[in-house]
Amino acid sequence: MSDTGTRRPRGIATVCLSGTIEDKLDAAARAGFDGVEIFEDDLIATSWAPERIRQRCADLGLNIDLYQPFRDFEAAPPRRLAANLRRAEHKFDLMERLGVVTMLVCSSVAPDTIDDDDLAAAQLRQLAEHAARRGLRVAYEALAWGRHVNTYTRSADIVARADHPALGLCLDSFHILSRGSDPGDIADIPGDKLFFLQLADAPRPRMDLLQWSRHHRLFPGQGDFDLSGFLRRVLAAGYQGPLSLEVFNDVFRQAEPHRAAIDAMRSLLTLEESIGAPLPEAPAPSEVAFTSLTPGENCRPELAQTLAAMGFALTGRHRRQPVELWEQGTMRVLLDDGSDDPHDRISGLAVETTDPAAAARRAEALLAPVSSPEATAAAPLSVRAPDGSRVIFCDADWRRDFHLTAPAPPSRTHLLGVDHIALTQPFDHFDAATLFYHSILGLNTEDDGEYAAPFGLVRSRALSDPRHRVRIALSVALLRRGAEWSPGVPAPQHIAFATDDIFAAAEAMRANAVPLLSIPDNYYDDLGARLAPPQLDRLRAHHVLYDRDRRGEFLHLYTAVHGNRVFFEVVQRIGDYSGYGTANAPVRMAAHRRYRLSRTPGPGSPGSAR
Amino acid sequence: MSDTGTRRPRGIATVCLSGTIEDKLDAAARAGFDGVEIFEDDLIATSWAPERIRQRCADLGLNIDLYQPFRDFEAAPPRRLAANLRRAEHKFDLMERLGVVTMLVCSSVAPDTIDDDDLAAAQLRQLAEHAARRGLRVAYEALAWGRHVNTYTRSADIVARADHPALGLCLDSFHILSRGSDPGDIADIPGDKLFFLQLADAPRPRMDLLQWSRHHRLFPGQGDFDLSGFLRRVLAAGYQGPLSLEVFNDVFRQAEPHRAAIDAMRSLLTLEESIGAPLPEAPAPSEVAFTSLTPGENCRPELAQTLAAMGFALTGRHRRQPVELWEQGTMRVLLDDGSDDPHDRISGLAVETTDPAAAARRAEALLAPVSSPEATAAAPLSVRAPDGSRVIFCDADWRRDFHLTAPAPPSRTHLLGVDHIALTQPFDHFDAATLFYHSILGLNTEDDGEYAAPFGLVRSRALSDPRHRVRIALSVALLRRGAEWSPGVPAPQHIAFATDDIFAAAEAMRANAVPLLSIPDNYYDDLGARLAPPQLDRLRAHHVLYDRDRRGEFLHLYTAVHGNRVFFEVVQRIGDYSGYGTANAPVRMAAHRRYRLSRTPGPGSPGSAR
Repeated sequence: MSDTGTRRPRGIATVCLSGTIEDKLDAAARAGFDGVEIFEDDLIATSWAPERIRQRCADLGLNIDLYQPFRDFEAAPPRRLAANLRRAEHKFDLMERLGVVTMLVCSSVAPDTIDDDDLAAAQLRQLAEHAARRGLRVAYEALAWGRHVNTYTRSADIVARADHPALGLCLDSFHILSRGSDPGDIADIPGDKLFFLQLADAPRPRMDLLQWSRHHRLFPGQGDFDLSGFLRRVLAAGYQGPLSLEVFNDVFRQAEPHRAAIDAMRSLLTLEESIGAPLPEAPAPSEVAFTSLTPGENCRPELAQTLAAMGFALTGRHRRQPVELWEQGTMRVLLDDGSDDPHDRISGLAVETTDPAAAARRAEALLAPVSSPEATAAAPLSVRAPDGSRVIFCDADWRRDFHLTAPAPPSRTHLLGVDHIALTQPFDHFDAATLFYHSILGLNTEDDGEYAAPFGLVRSRALSDPRHRVRIALSVALLRRGAEWSPGVPAPQHIAFATDDIFAAAEAMRANAVPLLSIPDNYYDDLGARLAPPQLDRLRAHHVLYDRDRRGEFLHLYTAVHGNRVFFEVVQRIGDYSGYGTANAPVRMAAHRRYRLSRTPGPGSPGSAR
Repeated sequence: MSDTGTRRPRGIATVCLSGTIEDKLDAAARAGFDGVEIFEDDLIATSWAPERIRQRCADLGLNIDLYQPFRDFEAAPPRRLAANLRRAEHKFDLMERLGVVTMLVCSSVAPDTIDDDDLAAAQLRQLAEHAARRGLRVAYEALAWGRHVNTYTRSADIVARADHPALGLCLDSFHILSRGSDPGDIADIPGDKLFFLQLADAPRPRMDLLQWSRHHRLFPGQGDFDLSGFLRRVLAAGYQGPLSLEVFNDVFRQAEPHRAAIDAMRSLLTLEESIGAPLPEAPAPSEVAFTSLTPGENCRPELAQTLAAMGFALTGRHRRQPVELWEQGTMRVLLDDGSDDPHDRISGLAVETTDPAAAARRAEALLAPVSSPEATAAAPLSVRAPDGSRVIFCDADWRRDFHLTAPAPPSRTHLLGVDHIALTQPFDHFDAATLFYHSILGLNTEDDGEYAAPFGLVRSRALSDPRHRVRIALSVALLRRGAEWSPGVPAPQHIAFATDDIFAAAEAMRANAVPLLSIPDNYYDDLGARLAPPQLDRLRAHHVLYDRDRRGEFLHLYTAVHGNRVFFEVVQRIGDYSGYGTANAPVRMAAHRRYRLSRTPGPGSPGSAR
């Protein structure tokens, strides 16, 4: 360019693009990029070894410009320095395998980061020394929301203090311009300290009160306001008029209005109940009685085979409907061959209650019309959830509708019960579903978040009864419309079974040829920065994923997808871990996609033929 | 409810629901609501007279609880009071026809509002006096972003000072709880001053720097940052590394990655050009040479008939392709019967340039591959825009490819030229389209906004060359997926022709039986608060819509939709009006839907059979 005379190589971070890393590298090369930044999450989810990625990039004429991000390093309490350096060495190993020279270190956001630039400089100098021994280097970037270091002038000052040839700066236009920092001071930075430049534009955000009000309101009970307290005060002051909803919401504005109006009325009834207006009461459901699946023709043999291999046995047939009962211990799965519901999905969740009739009366009062017994003899009292699946109210005697042919076998694969049911929702039913399960089953939101899946952003929310006997994990692809470019990615649903020994469960199921999902080595290589080798090797050997929170640990594994829409999970909760392993969902999704592509190879499958 | 003993009526504002008001009333009634708040925009867009809405509500058992909103009234400069009261009387007329007693007045946001609560109280007292004469009343609401009045305690104080029985408060949970106001002070408000209560929940917003960074970054040139200035400084400081894009964006994360990578590379090339790196130069397009339509079989006779009735004549046929040339003055429309492109849409936009080959070279350098001359003899040099339509580069002699059978007739219906081409975009092509037209045609963003259409939120952006000879108006349905519940609503595209006398144009076209779109009386009744009767009557008689901005006025009218995907607009710009009448788009959309439903009545058409 005229400013400098020579053209700079052009690069793109893998996070910019959709897909798995195989898709991304191919797209970057075809568009003429000279290099890529490899985002760690893309590496973790792929089955390609780092050496294969390196080779693929070389074949495509792509340089790997940067490995990113390494987080929460500088100005840590000194007692953590050694562990942080070990963590870095782990990444340096990986970088050598990838053939990338520069690692991005972004400024720390950890709450216990120390506000001391000399300490930051000293620690970064040590990191640079470690990198330099391997011929690597470190580019330090000030995040706009860094705990203490959040401007490029401060990061530049720290780099100058550290004064090590393997330590330089990464400048990101977003982190600088989003804060309104003056880019004029860039002139003061020595050119040889500018290790890397990341470019991004952005619209000025408009999320003020007005935007919040006009786009993101929700019906009562779907958001964060204390509306019970508010309403009590207004009524106590003597208000005599109607209770009127005024909700501006982008999703509701385009949703089928009859459905939205019912959701609205349900929210109002629930709010009124919270301040004392009576609704029919119903005892809380005590447990999941059974889950009902509707296997499609192609999926059915495989699904039955997997259930059997997991230790379930066919124990009965419905007296009037083509429905099979499969049991193991207290876990029951129905295969419903007579349903008009869409195939290859979870079509029903039956909860056991001491008073199904009361539950149905309550549901009906909350505008969830109860199906006529005639239509669903298999499930005398049921209502439709917003996603179309049934919630069935059973008493302890629900087996009377079945010809029982065998007793339920005891657990043969270390599975102990149902941990949760995971239901992917249509994008515009998410808030309605939360309200539905809350008002009708008494479940409360326990976990709420979002994550970047390989094919777009996913929002997740888990609901549970207080005793954790009935748990539902909802998820929704926030923007995804159809599956235009990645036909191998529908939105499958699954049942998660609990175990107290996931390795024994995995061994038992593998011995029975359950098609367990393979998790890539890169995932475990990355986990190696956190776990000791013996534990890591065991996880790797059994394709078990790992998560932890403040209260405990979580081990889980998955089966392959059956009929593109249903799979199973086995989970072990250690201590009081209360999540759902959501951080691992992107890895699982990429693995499921590989599994599907491996079974249906073809020129149309992205990444398969490359 | 227990707090007060009696059940309150339950209401819902029409803004909560999707559709036209007919759909909304029906949905509210079926869900069991007792009443509705009528939002003004819903009334303006319907062809139902207020009396018919009143009757419909009565038939459905719905009370009309509130008419809303009336804006920017209180504490206005005293010279505007009389006009504001006239405006209010206009709404009172409407309320009497609807049979609604209470009008919502929200606190003023006008910049010249005076910070004087006594003045606010005095003016509101006068408004209440006017309302009381008709048996009506006024509920005053503090918007969270009101210019001076933005808390309920302040609005309550003003109402107390005004001390008029027809003036009370409206409390909206959003406006109170979003600001974190303490609802405890509600106890101090006399119950008889609580005229209305609006309930809404909301999630706590998370639009901090981190959310902005992780979800809403854009490629250079698609956002608001000065990246040229930034990049110059980094290069001047001596940076020697690659230019690397790091863009976290929810839409890109799920878009086809090869397309996104090309968009990314185009953004980088354009940024480099802005700091002096050469790209092939091309002269700016001088005007729209022609617009090409691909009529489907069903649409074709009707479309040709409309063109003829609008004054166009068939003047030639392409020498090698089944393509007709229709002309009038300097306006040309091609009907392309030989294209493989989707039917019933604008398939091409031809721009005239002194050097088509240079334009093509530039487009090619910007990764818009030029079609081979073989494939498109009708348009030797063309590229595909992100939405799949063609941009064709013509010289002044483009007619040589046609057998000319007649000279272009002079304008016969007062149409003078093409004002703009309106292209609805696939939802994930919007930012890419902006960059495409900017980098390849040199058009700049002139107008950027969003509006609530009857079936969801629409984002709009207009691009123009500096001389306003080539204008493109892009729009996109932000969340809409498919057309599940409203099959009569595709995303039609249109050509807008300019006139200097829209009434003469309307008369000429009506005389020729052009199917012009009927605009409902409610629209003009509402305009009556702003325009004098003679002008208003003329607009109404000709179904002409009206807009104005700081610099001028805008008159426009529409034809019916042809083949569900194409229609025409006629626009008259008065003074230096620079917009596109976007405020009227929801009215146009509702009218087009009525037109379509009137031609294809059926039980499946929402609102048609009610």
